[in-house]
Amino acid sequence: MAVYKLELLRKAMIERGISALVVPSGDPHFGEYIQAHYKCVEWLSGFNGSAGTIAVTLKDAALWTDSRFFVQAEAQLAGSGIGLMKMKIPGTEGIDTWIKKRLKDGERVGVVKELLPLSDFNMLQQDLLPFELVETDDLFQTVWKSRPVVESYRINVLDDVYTGESVSSKHARIVAEIGEEGDFLYLISSCDDIAWLFNIRGADIEYNPVPLAYAALTKNSMTLFIKTGTLTEELNLHLSKENVRVMGYDEFDTFISSYPTYAIRIASKEKISLSKYEISLSGGALFKPDTRRGGIIANLKAVKNETEISGFRKAMILDGVAWVKYLRFVEERLKEKNNPLGEWEAAAKIALLRAESDLYMGESFAPIVAFGPNAALPHYEPSEAVHSFVGNDNFLLTDTGGQYICGTTDTTRTIAIGDITEEQKRDYTLVLSGMINLAMARFPSGTRGAQLDILARGPVFSAGKMYMHGTGHGVGHYLCVHEGPQSIRMEENPVVLKPGMITSDEPAIYEEGRYGIRCENLILCKEWCKNKFATFCEFETLTLVPFDTRPVIRELLGKEKIDWLNEYHKRVFRELSPYLKNDDREWLKIRTADID
Amino acid sequence: MAVYKLELLRKAMIERGISALVVPSGDPHFGEYIQAHYKCVEWLSGFNGSAGTIAVTLKDAALWTDSRFFVQAEAQLAGSGIGLMKMKIPGTEGIDTWIKKRLKDGERVGVVKELLPLSDFNMLQQDLLPFELVETDDLFQTVWKSRPVVESYRINVLDDVYTGESVSSKHARIVAEIGEEGDFLYLISSCDDIAWLFNIRGADIEYNPVPLAYAALTKNSMTLFIKTGTLTEELNLHLSKENVRVMGYDEFDTFISSYPTYAIRIASKEKISLSKYEISLSGGALFKPDTRRGGIIANLKAVKNETEISGFRKAMILDGVAWVKYLRFVEERLKEKNNPLGEWEAAAKIALLRAESDLYMGESFAPIVAFGPNAALPHYEPSEAVHSFVGNDNFLLTDTGGQYICGTTDTTRTIAIGDITEEQKRDYTLVLSGMINLAMARFPSGTRGAQLDILARGPVFSAGKMYMHGTGHGVGHYLCVHEGPQSIRMEENPVVLKPGMITSDEPAIYEEGRYGIRCENLILCKEWCKNKFATFCEFETLTLVPFDTRPVIRELLGKEKIDWLNEYHKRVFRELSPYLKNDDREWLKIRTADID
Repeated sequence: MAVYKLELLRKAMIERGISALVVPSGDPHFGEYIQAHYKCVEWLSGFNGSAGTIAVTLKDAALWTDSRFFVQAEAQLAGSGIGLMKMKIPGTEGIDTWIKKRLKDGERVGVVKELLPLSDFNMLQQDLLPFELVETDDLFQTVWKSRPVVESYRINVLDDVYTGESVSSKHARIVAEIGEEGDFLYLISSCDDIAWLFNIRGADIEYNPVPLAYAALTKNSMTLFIKTGTLTEELNLHLSKENVRVMGYDEFDTFISSYPTYAIRIASKEKISLSKYEISLSGGALFKPDTRRGGIIANLKAVKNETEISGFRKAMILDGVAWVKYLRFVEERLKEKNNPLGEWEAAAKIALLRAESDLYMGESFAPIVAFGPNAALPHYEPSEAVHSFVGNDNFLLTDTGGQYICGTTDTTRTIAIGDITEEQKRDYTLVLSGMINLAMARFPSGTRGAQLDILARGPVFSAGKMYMHGTGHGVGHYLCVHEGPQSIRMEENPVVLKPGMITSDEPAIYEEGRYGIRCENLILCKEWCKNKFATFCEFETLTLVPFDTRPVIRELLGKEKIDWLNEYHKRVFRELSPYLKNDDREWLKIRTADID
Repeated sequence: MAVYKLELLRKAMIERGISALVVPSGDPHFGEYIQAHYKCVEWLSGFNGSAGTIAVTLKDAALWTDSRFFVQAEAQLAGSGIGLMKMKIPGTEGIDTWIKKRLKDGERVGVVKELLPLSDFNMLQQDLLPFELVETDDLFQTVWKSRPVVESYRINVLDDVYTGESVSSKHARIVAEIGEEGDFLYLISSCDDIAWLFNIRGADIEYNPVPLAYAALTKNSMTLFIKTGTLTEELNLHLSKENVRVMGYDEFDTFISSYPTYAIRIASKEKISLSKYEISLSGGALFKPDTRRGGIIANLKAVKNETEISGFRKAMILDGVAWVKYLRFVEERLKEKNNPLGEWEAAAKIALLRAESDLYMGESFAPIVAFGPNAALPHYEPSEAVHSFVGNDNFLLTDTGGQYICGTTDTTRTIAIGDITEEQKRDYTLVLSGMINLAMARFPSGTRGAQLDILARGPVFSAGKMYMHGTGHGVGHYLCVHEGPQSIRMEENPVVLKPGMITSDEPAIYEEGRYGIRCENLILCKEWCKNKFATFCEFETLTLVPFDTRPVIRELLGKEKIDWLNEYHKRVFRELSPYLKNDDREWLKIRTADID
């Protein structure tokens, strides 16, 4: 199938005199999830991981992806005629070098400028200089006969009761951060930045409650570009009250190119496409990059205000209640002899339990329920068609999250089913130990995530094991569950952790073919104390879901962390029990009992 | 006095039509210590910290230094007419901006290109573009009447028995790292890089056993440029055996400018002066920077070979024996009622005790013996003229190190004299806890120092305290006690910790006006294990000096670290006791006894 599509594509390339093509991956808004319309890489190759780019010449084709997807890509690309290029592995060529080696100077390379962030283009440019870059926006439209159209859905207003800040106040803070004396036009492509700024939420993207939209700001004005038909009366009222001008999604190009050229164009290079960049400067305007990692809006958005934080705390109670019911459901169900529990059914169950709350808006990412060896694949997702049943004598890992109108959750719990080995108990204790280490950290303001990462990873390292993903990602407020710019990982990231930032804390151990363990809470960075030395921060754990204490090896966890765990469980019971009845309450009482 | 010198300087500036002058700090080899000849900043301002640069205009003058020297600089600059510019503090202008604000375009700025590393110049350049930079090498020669001359001393050969690698082998490894196909000339200004490469040691610089020298390498040749008169018969034999050509120190400029221009010049921008850079390119040659942080040689030098590591282990025994005698001496002496112990006398005593070994070559840095409040100044050094006596009921901090022909040491111990407070005991325990945390770390290869720093700092942070200096610096092999390129500090440093690297481990707490605590061992990075996950490293503690266990709060240190401490003390006794007699041996037995 893939081979046939590749032939179709090459035929179209020859017709247009194109020697190499970079197959678009992602959409013009550069979020984590995309609509079906933009899944050209999946259509062509069968690879459906969330990160991958393909380059095609008339003879060769290859897909670039990162370590999260090596196993999956290898399987899905088999027989496709598309090779696998392992990113960040020494010796792997970049796309540009790969193309350069295969083409003669002066040949034409097809790109879709609309789908290429300016920052990527800057990186590509060097090796692609000898070639002519040609726009191939419509090429896939030709070869992909059944390509889905871009869909657009209703946009809702998120009340100040949930956001805690008006649009005009956010606008004023952005303008202050831009700090530009003269006239400027600040260009925004990122849907979650737009949703945050305008206090709106959409449904155009799976899991990310955002509308497909553009926006442009000046010192005194805001213009929002949305799909026609999404402008309800409520939205219209909200936007006009906040003095936001509304224009059509397709009018963005004309607006930014025809805006007076003396106004400087400003945007984050990671979040603006080459196409929008070129269009906005077509009249001869000047461009200034927004140099803050992730851009100014992402940096403001990452620091949650008191209202948002209260909302998160409320969401955690609602989510914790669903988790308790889910965990007890799993336990009870596994007692039934002739009624095996499928991973897919379990995943559906927790979603249903969350939906008992009126504030629940949907899942925050594709749920992971993985038993035994499945849990060793960090990005395993059961599907209705392909999944396993929960067996015995191994770990069951559940990593799911909910979108609530007041906040977003993301929790992983690993529970022992039946008897587990001493090695499994040790590994479980080390992962939990790492998670608690990070949760207990205290540090001066100015500290970056890469400095704290070892706290979570250290216990895992001490056993000669490791996990290849980050320890912590930022989390949006009823927005993207993976939100920048802060992170807690081994790689240096200059963004410092600030009070108000919410990050995950999720160390893990994966034993391929055997088992996987991950413990994940969300933690809030808060000011702890201020003295002559510094202002110090600490974390407040937000997530309220009991841990399985049965596999914990007491001596290995140590007194300090046992105390933390007991205190945490006391709090979980205190906060959740008012919302639980009879059996669920009794179950939680037992599961949150002190260990000594 | 300083005001009068400033007037002399300004008179000379006016005579030459110079509106601003950057006062040279450092020497042309960019090491930590410099000869008296190069101490222009101290002559002019009275400030004698090891890092400081002055800019002078006809009206203003200011000194830039970092946080280590703020207190000292403030005191020493008082009444000098020279302001203090606190580096890395938000809002502090750089030298270039400061000058730019005070001058009109086209005015002349005096610099000494010989003393300006190319990397600094690149940074300066932007704001100084509107000005004419003029060479003022001889200006200080005119105003500083009693300026000392540059001294040069005998150069010794360091036998392969100590170095473990021949000059030609090192040359071959450097050439391989340079990886240049065509002809090149690799320029070396850094004296410790030269001493390492040529297996020589000198005495031109205090504490750093290096000669003032330059060197130039090609694929097949090595040329060493040294002061006339230092070439002994032994050195001549050694160098000719290794096919090293010897030329005069002053012949370096002619050599590098007259070397065929088709040969590319390569050097580390941090380690080559603007002057040498310009001279080497005067014939139209091409320049390629050595982009490895610290340069290729520093990176090779930092990884110690087995012979060097054995030498370090031997040096640690010799040093440990001196420390035991010193610590017992202090204890005994403090019992004498009418014979107070001066910090200066104590510092002299440990040097004398070290000198009992034939392999001892001198101190590796200016000794710090600091009682009570003095210890709260991280860079306090007692002098014969100005020092305190060791009193009662406070900590005595001793931070000293020795140069042995087989290795370099650097150790800090803090001991309780009389009664100390609960807060002091807690702080002492936290500092020791941090030091042990880092010493126990295990981590995959590829880990950087900034990732591990929190292990040492975390316990200090947990009490809402912090120290402003790094946790760990590299240490040379009978070379500079502060050696790059690796470090363990809060700031990101891309250099990864590799097996064979030796680093200090020295967390601290400083309570201004009250007390200071620092514990410091040297630790060696070693391979621990290799498995499907990664190759893991761990540290071997090299230093063999007992800690004062009396202030340790058991519950706070915790079982795991008490076990480490007891094991460490067993090893200290096992390794040192064969070299100790009677009372010293007995004392060590008691001081290294298990705590429970």
